[in-house]
Amino acid sequence: MNFKSDNTASAAAEILRALSDVNDGAVAAYGDDPWSQKLDEAFSAVFEREVRVFTVASGTAANAISIATLTPPWGSVLCHREAHIECDECGAPEFFSGGAKLVLMEGEGAKVTPATLAEAAARNARGIHSVQPSMLSISQTTERGSIYTPAEVFALGETARGAGLRFHMDGARFANAVAALGCKPADVSWRGGVDLLSFGATKNGALAAESVVVFDLELAEEVARRRKRGGHLFCKGRYPAAQFLAYLKDGLWLKLAARANGLAAKLADAAGVAGESNQVFIKPGAEGLAKLRAAGAQFYDWGADGSGEARLVVSWNQPEAEVEAMCALLKSLR
Amino acid sequence: MNFKSDNTASAAAEILRALSDVNDGAVAAYGDDPWSQKLDEAFSAVFEREVRVFTVASGTAANAISIATLTPPWGSVLCHREAHIECDECGAPEFFSGGAKLVLMEGEGAKVTPATLAEAAARNARGIHSVQPSMLSISQTTERGSIYTPAEVFALGETARGAGLRFHMDGARFANAVAALGCKPADVSWRGGVDLLSFGATKNGALAAESVVVFDLELAEEVARRRKRGGHLFCKGRYPAAQFLAYLKDGLWLKLAARANGLAAKLADAAGVAGESNQVFIKPGAEGLAKLRAAGAQFYDWGADGSGEARLVVSWNQPEAEVEAMCALLKSLR
Amino acid sequence: MNFKSDNTASAAAEILRALSDVNDGAVAAYGDDPWSQKLDEAFSAVFEREVRVFTVASGTAANAISIATLTPPWGSVLCHREAHIECDECGAPEFFSGGAKLVLMEGEGAKVTPATLAEAAARNARGIHSVQPSMLSISQTTERGSIYTPAEVFALGETARGAGLRFHMDGARFANAVAALGCKPADVSWRGGVDLLSFGATKNGALAAESVVVFDLELAEEVARRRKRGGHLFCKGRYPAAQFLAYLKDGLWLKLAARANGLAAKLADAAGVAGESNQVFIKPGAEGLAKLRAAGAQFYDWGADGSGEARLVVSWNQPEAEVEAMCALLKSLR
Amino acid sequence: MNFKSDNTASAAAEILRALSDVNDGAVAAYGDDPWSQKLDEAFSAVFEREVRVFTVASGTAANAISIATLTPPWGSVLCHREAHIECDECGAPEFFSGGAKLVLMEGEGAKVTPATLAEAAARNARGIHSVQPSMLSISQTTERGSIYTPAEVFALGETARGAGLRFHMDGARFANAVAALGCKPADVSWRGGVDLLSFGATKNGALAAESVVVFDLELAEEVARRRKRGGHLFCKGRYPAAQFLAYLKDGLWLKLAARANGLAAKLADAAGVAGESNQVFIKPGAEGLAKLRAAGAQFYDWGADGSGEARLVVSWNQPEAEVEAMCALLKSLR
Repeated sequence: MNFKSDNTASAAAEILRALSDVNDGAVAAYGDDPWSQKLDEAFSAVFEREVRVFTVASGTAANAISIATLTPPWGSVLCHREAHIECDECGAPEFFSGGAKLVLMEGEGAKVTPATLAEAAARNARGIHSVQPSMLSISQTTERGSIYTPAEVFALGETARGAGLRFHMDGARFANAVAALGCKPADVSWRGGVDLLSFGATKNGALAAESVVVFDLELAEEVARRRKRGGHLFCKGRYPAAQFLAYLKDGLWLKLAARANGLAAKLADAAGVAGESNQVFIKPGAEGLAKLRAAGAQFYDWGADGSGEARLVVSWNQPEAEVEAMCALLKSLR
Repeated sequence: MNFKSDNTASAAAEILRALSDVNDGAVAAYGDDPWSQKLDEAFSAVFEREVRVFTVASGTAANAISIATLTPPWGSVLCHREAHIECDECGAPEFFSGGAKLVLMEGEGAKVTPATLAEAAARNARGIHSVQPSMLSISQTTERGSIYTPAEVFALGETARGAGLRFHMDGARFANAVAALGCKPADVSWRGGVDLLSFGATKNGALAAESVVVFDLELAEEVARRRKRGGHLFCKGRYPAAQFLAYLKDGLWLKLAARANGLAAKLADAAGVAGESNQVFIKPGAEGLAKLRAAGAQFYDWGADGSGEARLVVSWNQPEAEVEAMCALLKSLR
Repeated sequence: MNFKSDNTASAAAEILRALSDVNDGAVAAYGDDPWSQKLDEAFSAVFEREVRVFTVASGTAANAISIATLTPPWGSVLCHREAHIECDECGAPEFFSGGAKLVLMEGEGAKVTPATLAEAAARNARGIHSVQPSMLSISQTTERGSIYTPAEVFALGETARGAGLRFHMDGARFANAVAALGCKPADVSWRGGVDLLSFGATKNGALAAESVVVFDLELAEEVARRRKRGGHLFCKGRYPAAQFLAYLKDGLWLKLAARANGLAAKLADAAGVAGESNQVFIKPGAEGLAKLRAAGAQFYDWGADGSGEARLVVSWNQPEAEVEAMCALLKSLR
Repeated sequence: MNFKSDNTASAAAEILRALSDVNDGAVAAYGDDPWSQKLDEAFSAVFEREVRVFTVASGTAANAISIATLTPPWGSVLCHREAHIECDECGAPEFFSGGAKLVLMEGEGAKVTPATLAEAAARNARGIHSVQPSMLSISQTTERGSIYTPAEVFALGETARGAGLRFHMDGARFANAVAALGCKPADVSWRGGVDLLSFGATKNGALAAESVVVFDLELAEEVARRRKRGGHLFCKGRYPAAQFLAYLKDGLWLKLAARANGLAAKLADAAGVAGESNQVFIKPGAEGLAKLRAAGAQFYDWGADGSGEARLVVSWNQPEAEVEAMCALLKSLR
């Protein structure tokens, strides 16, 4: 019963098979192969408009390259205090951006509101002496499993635009959000004002497939340059491309995410908590957590030390039996 | 007849199969899976001493992380004018190192000699006003297909040590050199004084498997940090690990390289030029190159514009028939 | 009645005269002139031990160079939320350090306590995924006019050392602290564990004289390199050197600071608030502040918008009549 | 007889006096004082058009900030092999620019020609794999004492513009060039296409006064930000401003430069070499240099080790007697 993270999961058969399917013959390197050449089209279809997509090795890379593209070194990145870019990337955004500053906002469920954003953007009384608020970065879904609705994304986008901020979305679990909302991918990205999206597939069934999706096409050249300089231009481009093509084909990405969301909803029900995506946050106290672990469950504690809180993440291929067993355990704690 | 580069080749069956073999069940992420945990041991066996290895997404990343670890920002990196780090990485070494300077040396076959190195290291008359020579970086094999013998590596290592320089080796085609020399991997790496080695597998049969091999174990922590900050710590570590384990198993890496070297030797023979590894440099003039292309050969021009020179690279799985056909063409030009 | 900042003040006659005194003949550039050569000795005498001192153009430069020397790019700098390095340097610490992160601590009077420091240093549960707490930076005096006693500096130094942190002090107003404490400069610097001190003279009577004082002599070479690369090595070194020599001579620096402190104490008395150095923080409400301004007083609002709070800074040469007039105004508000 | 460099000289009486003249009363800090506020106007008058000027602490800072403003991190800076930015700034351009690459050109007298520039700008066959030629940087006067005529600057500017390059001029000795040419400052700067000019006064009579003059006004905001982040925004702005105002007043800067040029011409005559500015390059051989030194002359060897070459620099206030004595020595060597 491993609920530690969706990055503990293996890869989907369709995606693994795609690697074999492209593994034939000599093809041009560095993204000039036939599969890489189809990526823009495939993503453009998913997003219902022309986009450019750049594959990279990790979500950290996708985020850091996006941020460096959207803020000057003397800018600040407004983000939630629990954002992955703040807590889990060992300073990659600062490194890639040449030393921009992350300015932290509060908010329930690791979400930020337009009011909080407006307040943070306005807080810059010292002119040349302060870094300049330059961009907003949010996570969809958030690090607390919450989801921004299309209207919420749009409202943030409007506030950002009004404050002169660019807009980045960390979509390491974008699939889970779209599957949960039942909306169009466009509705929670560019239609809401997002300029660059870190679109991840690794957590949801790929081996290693992360990307930057560029909605503001004028940024494409800079993303390409920063990717190359970061060592993220794969020489054998066919393999990341094949993973993404299989991931998007026939809505596989949404099917996998929907399955994980559905099983997570069972866990949330059993625990008596709210749960929107494939992450569930429970708070059974230290004793409760110990009982779960004694029964074989694996997961991370969450929140402040000793808060008695934990995070359960359901993977795309989590065995149903594990979820059932975990549900029983969770109910027994109530 | 695609002789453009060995990165146009597909992946070896053994390595592709290794991905399926590890694609089962939930395992710890970020290098704590069972296969990643075997990497240090596998590399230590190959190198006959304790090493630490860090997988990354590209050779550029391996080089840039190594360089950033071995030079302070105010240092200079002594390398050949044709080095990949100078010509083909869009400034990645400068980016990762915080702005160190590449100082260029000349030398036949893209090789540098101890004398050239000593002279370059001594050329620093301006004290605080100049960058400080901090490290040597050589490519094995070189960008001109040449190979450093164990004695040559050792002599460079001694000169470097005497001048207070650290020593990096770009081993994107390390396998081809070792296969050609018939020596131990240790003989052209740490026994010669190399501190960090970019050890690549992608060009020689992997899908995407590059790494930094750490011989000076005190550098391991810094390499780990720089890898994470560069977005090069794969979350599903099992897949790059599996590629490397299959690559090293039963000497697969040397078999593949030896095959490419052998076929390249035939091309060199046919063209009447010297050829040590899987790269062959021919100079049939503009007309000759046109004839080759008209007959269906694909390759890159090399050297200065209009030099009538070209590079032919043989891949690990280059069809023998292609090589035979190319040999016939090359002979016809003589 | 300009109480905006001590950087609005002109320069002391002794220091201006020192510029003329050295303005004769050709001397070696870049710090090899006779006056620059005396700097280390003069500072060593003041600090009762061997130190190295490096003049720079601004306090921001002194801080940023110090920070870059004490933290790796993947480190974090623990500092108070109101620290100058966080609020007023437009990201210079991030720029010079290659993207280190400032992690903010709370504390009355912009001071941090050993307990707060210990807690912040321990908060790093995510291993390779987080930046690593690498150093402490405090301001003496603080941005709220508070002063660390020798015992407080020592306690912070011990906590820092225990947590593996280096220790930087921003001494833009170091003179005011030493004058107020009546202690030895050593007692609130290296004896308390400080590794690098930004020692400023500009606010206290110089034209432009800031410096990094190096207590851990092994850091001197790196400070020298970072200064040069930052464009802070003056070619005509005699002029900053002369300012510092005059500043330290016969305790001028402490006399000027003591005068400012003394006048500030009168303001504090008149306002009925505590005041330790040459900064006084008053809270007469919006109406009170308006009255002061209507009467001709100049100062900055402080704290959150609408807090009705203000900062008064007394300069080394603030006319006594201005202080008397201001005292009368402040009393009238009570 | 100190001919080592013009930065060994003291400051002009007019400029030193200007410091006293502004040393009265409290004024706004950070460039909002009355003298700083006059700088743009004074420089605009000199350059016959609207400019913005930003004072900094050193020529290295002026160059590095300019370069960082004109090239992205993935760009290259085309400059002469002997340029100060390449040889004497310890990598400051790389530091400020986030790792841009200096690409070196050859040319007599440390000058570059349009043909050389065009060739260097075109040399970029590797697309995404190479840094992108982004800007030209030349020195006026050059590190070999040569001077670009207005026509030469214009031709370079046209070639640069045609190749999509921005244009920076290192004017550490701009005054000597303008005085020698007898032209308008505009003729060898913005009329020739220069975007940013490092305009130095330190070598020509100031204590420490360097600046970036912005001709493309859209760059001003970025220069301001980079200056602040580099620690080059002086808090007491009146002192650098006063130096520049005195320097420009009644053509003092050109008078001082003309004097130095005139005396240098005598040295050149005596040595039988060409000399355009205040730097003279002689080649009397090792024995000749030894004789000069034995007679009390101080200077730097120049060129390759053992070339028997030396540089003589005449300062704005070089005693005429020293020049006469040196002339006699130089003649005795012929």
